[in-house]
Amino acid sequence: MSFIATPQSMHFPEVLPLQSGASIRDYHLAYETYGTLNADRSNAVLVCHALNASHHVAGVYAGQDKSEGWWDNMIGPGKPVDTDRFFVIGVNNLGSCFGSTGPMHNHPDTGEVYGADFPVVTVEDWVNAQARLLDRLGITQLAAVLGGSLGGMQALSWTLQYPERMRHAVVVASAPNLTAENIAFNEVARRAIVTDPDFHGGHFYRHGVIPKRGLRIARMIGHITYLSDDVMNEKFGRQLREGIDLKYSTQDIEFQIESYLRYQGDKFSDYFDANTYLLITRALDYFDPARAHAGNLTRALARATAKFLLVSFTTDWRFSPQRSREIVKALLDNRRSVSYAEIDAPHGHDAFLLDDARYMSVMRSYFDSIAKELQA
Amino acid sequence: MSFIATPQSMHFPEVLPLQSGASIRDYHLAYETYGTLNADRSNAVLVCHALNASHHVAGVYAGQDKSEGWWDNMIGPGKPVDTDRFFVIGVNNLGSCFGSTGPMHNHPDTGEVYGADFPVVTVEDWVNAQARLLDRLGITQLAAVLGGSLGGMQALSWTLQYPERMRHAVVVASAPNLTAENIAFNEVARRAIVTDPDFHGGHFYRHGVIPKRGLRIARMIGHITYLSDDVMNEKFGRQLREGIDLKYSTQDIEFQIESYLRYQGDKFSDYFDANTYLLITRALDYFDPARAHAGNLTRALARATAKFLLVSFTTDWRFSPQRSREIVKALLDNRRSVSYAEIDAPHGHDAFLLDDARYMSVMRSYFDSIAKELQA
Repeated sequence: MSFIATPQSMHFPEVLPLQSGASIRDYHLAYETYGTLNADRSNAVLVCHALNASHHVAGVYAGQDKSEGWWDNMIGPGKPVDTDRFFVIGVNNLGSCFGSTGPMHNHPDTGEVYGADFPVVTVEDWVNAQARLLDRLGITQLAAVLGGSLGGMQALSWTLQYPERMRHAVVVASAPNLTAENIAFNEVARRAIVTDPDFHGGHFYRHGVIPKRGLRIARMIGHITYLSDDVMNEKFGRQLREGIDLKYSTQDIEFQIESYLRYQGDKFSDYFDANTYLLITRALDYFDPARAHAGNLTRALARATAKFLLVSFTTDWRFSPQRSREIVKALLDNRRSVSYAEIDAPHGHDAFLLDDARYMSVMRSYFDSIAKELQA
Repeated sequence: MSFIATPQSMHFPEVLPLQSGASIRDYHLAYETYGTLNADRSNAVLVCHALNASHHVAGVYAGQDKSEGWWDNMIGPGKPVDTDRFFVIGVNNLGSCFGSTGPMHNHPDTGEVYGADFPVVTVEDWVNAQARLLDRLGITQLAAVLGGSLGGMQALSWTLQYPERMRHAVVVASAPNLTAENIAFNEVARRAIVTDPDFHGGHFYRHGVIPKRGLRIARMIGHITYLSDDVMNEKFGRQLREGIDLKYSTQDIEFQIESYLRYQGDKFSDYFDANTYLLITRALDYFDPARAHAGNLTRALARATAKFLLVSFTTDWRFSPQRSREIVKALLDNRRSVSYAEIDAPHGHDAFLLDDARYMSVMRSYFDSIAKELQA
């Protein structure tokens, strides 16, 4: 049984300029904190989330079964990121559908639901918004910023946008940008949503419908890319759903993997917002710190002063170890302090959320060393 | 300039029993032949097609620019499969939308368009239909059956269903069955089609609409799996469609890869039949000769007496070299004659349709040896 977590919300009336040139004001950020901020405010760890997650990183909600945070195996009392030593902050990003201001909320000027008019937000915008939240919490410098996948991109961006405000960056199963194939999968998912007749150009709320068909397809595609071919074969293989007889049908479920994907798609379409999906996949597409340096990642990362831990997983074909090694190389070119662990795990991209003894041990020892550094 | 090809059609009034227990009668097969059948009728080569192809394997249609057959680089006078020496037969499979009887044709009992009522056909059914076509053409034994991808599965199935009717099997970029991941991609594509409101349970013809949204998504997913990550990065990378400025939009095209995928999806949805897409992906899913032998491929292939050439491509992640090696191993276990070439090509699954000097040379020398064997 985990500890009790309590979601909080912070209101920001002031304008936040966005990378696109647009801006947003009068917004809320949902967040949670675990552990205690120490006297010199030096033990804060910011956890950034990926596509389908939120500020609810660890712990459970009072009276709610199975409400563990998405990284509850990693963060908590006595866990690798030990909340007996660190003050951990989870924050829901702008544009999300889990509590922070997003497309299903009202535009302060018009009083109408944002829908497709919610401004495009980037990883850099999220980091700026997170920095303002930390200002309000009275935290000048973070002990670490930690994230996996898209969360790792935010941790990396932190080191470039606010190098003086952090000591460590922990970047797990991430990449310095998306490949053409990554963008391609995002684009197919987006097209499935946008061409769903229930999308209504992103203003489906006012029609009282939800583009569930598109969301289901988007989620099914996502799930394929989160898992490794090996783990899919091990988990489902060519097993039929019902016994051993084929039904010879093009539309009925025949194989277990079909049943699994349809279930995941249905579940997701019940709770995830279609506009949020578009926004978050676009933030992934756009992230590319080397872009302003003609593609030179070494030059892009010259600003970073944090110490780094990078972790990748051998069977992750979404953000392969090769992509983490590009970051490691660029940091070493800049003579930065970098630790790198390539974990031989079978689970594909999903591995970063799962228990793996070596992975947990790498994370634990890195955060132990941060804790010792704080005491020194 | 290639030679002129002439499509032909053969009518089969009799019943063809299908693997599902259903049957089909009064159907047509579209086919083409190139070259001349020799006096002892021993130089025939059957070419089996994959998902998005047809009986139009080589040559061009009179008066039609850019009408080259899909394997025109491989087959023709003086080409690796030399039509000056071989009598090559291309046949469009049942259920296709390129000339043979398929879902958009009329059911002979009702006079109504088949639509979703077209029976589920398997690789084995296609092979049986092809064998009947050969009966009509007076060909008892084939010099070779040749196919890539799903076409390779048909070539493999020929060696099990009609071992005495063929001398060689050439199986390119294929697999002994689909993995869970392969099935997963097929299932997402099918769901996109089936959940398109214009699908009408497969009877969209009578509504005068086409489920184009679903077909577009299906094709986009397909294209991602046909290409390698490397070739996508080389061809498109993170290039923007228009100049160097980002538009910050979730729905507009921003990257070249998005433009490419949308174009491919649009083009496909203009000519491909949605029910055919379901049927052909299901035939892929079902193919699994080892199934009747408790998953033991060695035992499954014991019936095969043909000599084999297998070819795979290093960057093909759809049907990886590992899958071809499984077939090679099972054949060697049975002490069959097997040649195997693993071509180091960057183009992914698509490589089997492209010009690669080493690939072409392997094919040429194998077919040269078949031609010599026929003269002996």
